[in-house]
Amino acid sequence: LNRPTLDDIRAAAERIAPHVHRTPVVHSSALDVELGLKAHFKCENLQKVGAFKARGAVNAVLQLDAQAAGRGVITHSSGNHGAALAYAARIRDIPCTVVMPEGAPPIKIDAVRGYGAEIVFCRRAERRAVCERVQDERGATLIHPYENPDVVAGQGTAALELLEQVGELDLVVAPVGGGGLLSGTAVAVRSTAPGTGVWGAEPETVDDAYRSLRDGIRHPAVPNPASWADGLLTGLGVRAFAILRESGVEIVTVDEAEILRATWTLIRRLKLVVEPSAATVLAALRRRAKALAGKRVGAILSGGNTDFRWLTDPALEGS
Amino acid sequence: LNRPTLDDIRAAAERIAPHVHRTPVVHSSALDVELGLKAHFKCENLQKVGAFKARGAVNAVLQLDAQAAGRGVITHSSGNHGAALAYAARIRDIPCTVVMPEGAPPIKIDAVRGYGAEIVFCRRAERRAVCERVQDERGATLIHPYENPDVVAGQGTAALELLEQVGELDLVVAPVGGGGLLSGTAVAVRSTAPGTGVWGAEPETVDDAYRSLRDGIRHPAVPNPASWADGLLTGLGVRAFAILRESGVEIVTVDEAEILRATWTLIRRLKLVVEPSAATVLAALRRRAKALAGKRVGAILSGGNTDFRWLTDPALEGS
Repeated sequence: LNRPTLDDIRAAAERIAPHVHRTPVVHSSALDVELGLKAHFKCENLQKVGAFKARGAVNAVLQLDAQAAGRGVITHSSGNHGAALAYAARIRDIPCTVVMPEGAPPIKIDAVRGYGAEIVFCRRAERRAVCERVQDERGATLIHPYENPDVVAGQGTAALELLEQVGELDLVVAPVGGGGLLSGTAVAVRSTAPGTGVWGAEPETVDDAYRSLRDGIRHPAVPNPASWADGLLTGLGVRAFAILRESGVEIVTVDEAEILRATWTLIRRLKLVVEPSAATVLAALRRRAKALAGKRVGAILSGGNTDFRWLTDPALEGS
Repeated sequence: LNRPTLDDIRAAAERIAPHVHRTPVVHSSALDVELGLKAHFKCENLQKVGAFKARGAVNAVLQLDAQAAGRGVITHSSGNHGAALAYAARIRDIPCTVVMPEGAPPIKIDAVRGYGAEIVFCRRAERRAVCERVQDERGATLIHPYENPDVVAGQGTAALELLEQVGELDLVVAPVGGGGLLSGTAVAVRSTAPGTGVWGAEPETVDDAYRSLRDGIRHPAVPNPASWADGLLTGLGVRAFAILRESGVEIVTVDEAEILRATWTLIRRLKLVVEPSAATVLAALRRRAKALAGKRVGAILSGGNTDFRWLTDPALEGS
């Protein structure tokens, strides 16, 4: 398997620098007191397109040769990667097609359209087939959201920046869905700071990464996955599984109430607009706070694109 | 009337510096394109206690002599000033009483209690009387939310900082309720940058400041005021009226739908958690965008304490 190295991540950081934000890192004294540790939050919710996905998509698109670029790029995504690829394509002024499921939220459709990409709607089950047909017809290059090594290298730049910004850490935590961010983080952290641990935060209802690393075999994606962390419904990818396993990454699962309480804490206390997927990292730190007493921890807030529908969930009562 | 000068505001800035944040100023290229101007947002939503109110309360409490301080401070407030005074009192480790209306939102009660203040509940109509009784009994000093010149000087430090951070501006906009922030802003801006205009943003449903400045007489507070901008329901104060009138401040009123759309824009596009009161400044810029074409504008985002109940308002449909 072709997997990115630290050099790839460093090259990606230089390549994408003109097109993405060096996002701030914030901390909260009150939250540190509550948790009994020192937590540094890397604000990828403030990244271009509102999520770390801009890093990987821009890195992949900038590396296409002129001929391939001219034929355009394509992906299937109902979430942040679609908007990120549309943003990346606009930088090079090349065509971009995003295959989206019928009934995708208007907020996400608008984001993709806002960057000038063409949207092809289809039923969820058909999206791979539709994607392949458009690839064949137009000669467009598929930029997969997490199975593409250039994308993974791009996602790894967030953790690289975090380490530059805050210095030595005992642990870095990132959310895990397909595993692009977490595997990029694992490569960046384990090769620059071998003593620093890497954890993935995963919704309990979509715990295939947890079971895969526990059992040493990649389990299939959870069928009909349901979680407020709508960025983490995808099954763990093949490449990501291999990297996470080699890197000794540990997965911490968190339940829906924990995810929502963490989202609300980040919004109410830190005044950060985060999506529930991002807040899984705080939920994981809370669940394991005892084991982390006194540690210096980095946590990647992956994105900030939410319609706040989760605010009506009764699990938030009293929070 | 005893009103603060630029020197008072400068002294306040130095006095409160160890206890409040120098809040960041942010801008959004996309929003600038939409508005056709360059807007700098001063993030007092990221201030201690989540609102600019920390500035005024800390400035007033730090100036009490030891004897007065020992007897404690008191205020009546159902909002951010109560929490700010509690925070300020904790800095000096002195008693603080906050008189709150029965039925105040739990989120606000918790904030005041969280800083260690005592809460006395009463009916809204009785709050002045209850406040006076507690003052008499305990010898506590009343720190009024906007009729106190030390409080106004403290609030003026936000605009002073904003000008230091972004340089020359054509206009500064701040929300107006009782007028503490807006009058402090007027003194700070008009005495350091006489060519820079000052506007107040006010909900249409609570437009006493607008009518007062238009007619040259201070109109009474609107009875039973209703607006999602719950920090701006108070009538314009006596001191504030005098300062705003002298300073040539203009009031721009905005309706509830404009306030909510602006709140949503700041949350969704800029990923800033703001309360509707704060978003009135963006609503005012939108309403007057034509007149401001090409201008450099500063806008004070007054606070970020919201329970998001406004998200269910049908006025937000399609935003």
